[in-house]
Amino acid sequence: MVNHRIPIMVGITDTSFEGSLEIAEYSHASGADAVVVAPPYYIPISQAEMMDYLEILIPRLPLPMLLYNIPSYTKLHLSVKTVKTAEELGAIGIKDSSGDMLYLFTLIDEFKNSPEFSIITGTELFMPETIMQGGHGAIGGGANLYPRLFVDLYEASVARDFEKITFLRDKVMMLYNTIYSVGKTSSRYTKGINCALSAMGICNDYVALPLRRFEGEDKQKIEQYILEFNGIMN
Amino acid sequence: MVNHRIPIMVGITDTSFEGSLEIAEYSHASGADAVVVAPPYYIPISQAEMMDYLEILIPRLPLPMLLYNIPSYTKLHLSVKTVKTAEELGAIGIKDSSGDMLYLFTLIDEFKNSPEFSIITGTELFMPETIMQGGHGAIGGGANLYPRLFVDLYEASVARDFEKITFLRDKVMMLYNTIYSVGKTSSRYTKGINCALSAMGICNDYVALPLRRFEGEDKQKIEQYILEFNGIMN
Repeated sequence: MVNHRIPIMVGITDTSFEGSLEIAEYSHASGADAVVVAPPYYIPISQAEMMDYLEILIPRLPLPMLLYNIPSYTKLHLSVKTVKTAEELGAIGIKDSSGDMLYLFTLIDEFKNSPEFSIITGTELFMPETIMQGGHGAIGGGANLYPRLFVDLYEASVARDFEKITFLRDKVMMLYNTIYSVGKTSSRYTKGINCALSAMGICNDYVALPLRRFEGEDKQKIEQYILEFNGIMN
Repeated sequence: MVNHRIPIMVGITDTSFEGSLEIAEYSHASGADAVVVAPPYYIPISQAEMMDYLEILIPRLPLPMLLYNIPSYTKLHLSVKTVKTAEELGAIGIKDSSGDMLYLFTLIDEFKNSPEFSIITGTELFMPETIMQGGHGAIGGGANLYPRLFVDLYEASVARDFEKITFLRDKVMMLYNTIYSVGKTSSRYTKGINCALSAMGICNDYVALPLRRFEGEDKQKIEQYILEFNGIMN
């Protein structure tokens, strides 16, 4: 927990089963609260293979486990049946980064009688719909930059304050149209957030290979956005 | 080298740059002849990011390096420009498992003045076309089972003996329609070959998680095929 309030969840996804267990043990020893698991992502696997995998993995984990659906990275869009199997095996919820809102709503509907199973969107723009439809939250990269904005959006969603939701979501849209849009690669979201965090003095802008940090003009653009957003986003 | 004749090439593809270097060092220390590198395969990357990556990686490798194009696993179909960059950086060739014959022929054409750069198909069925068009060989899983068949097919291709090519390729097609077709998942090719090697007494049928070895009816089918192929394939 950060300051006894914010749970720490560590991604342990790996193509190696033993590698995932090793990161899980390390996370446990380091005081993490839960682990996050997406499908092994080199050889394409089927839903049945993923279910078999979870059946072997989950009982061996030292911490609660959150499922992670990110088909654009893993090539597997977890079926509702796979998610149900994970829940039966003890998973505490799912983070869905498919960007598929129909799928998200289907999950919310399927698990409406299991409120202890958390349905969390990984698409920060969908947070209001997720909450209002009966889901539980969002894991959004933008909250690293402007946590107040995302807490306000969460609270407005719980309160169903549509006017406030629209006002706040316009700000989130501004992040998409600025920081998340620098450069042309799929990794621009990750690189943009790291660069912005560096511009804000929160951490350095290191990104692991094969990615490279923004430099030159790209970096200057992001530094300029951060200046412009001062007092607007939070 | 196996018996001073067959070079050993070790795949070092990893999402972690340091992980790839570590396997490369281990391969070198173990006497391997070359390493094989596909793009890092979790976060989708661009051609430019792959070129940057190769620029950093190749000079740090202790062994010659073969590029590996397998977009169905890595999500990146290496462009001709990326392959040319790899060659300029010292890569000795490419194994292409895209299954895209136009791409394969384009590569052969682009590198026709660099005969020391090997164009190798990973689709064993394309071996004759690869050789006759000016490419250099095939890395085919089936050669683990019936090496003589594939050596014969190679020699028939070099000799442009079309009648023999057709006769031998029909046998390769039989592998596709039998051993490679058991089960319904994308991994059936890998699992089928391992199971068949076990049925032939060459090695055991272990496959790493998330895959599971064939059992029961699937295993029996493959054992039956191996019996039927006795004397036919080699």
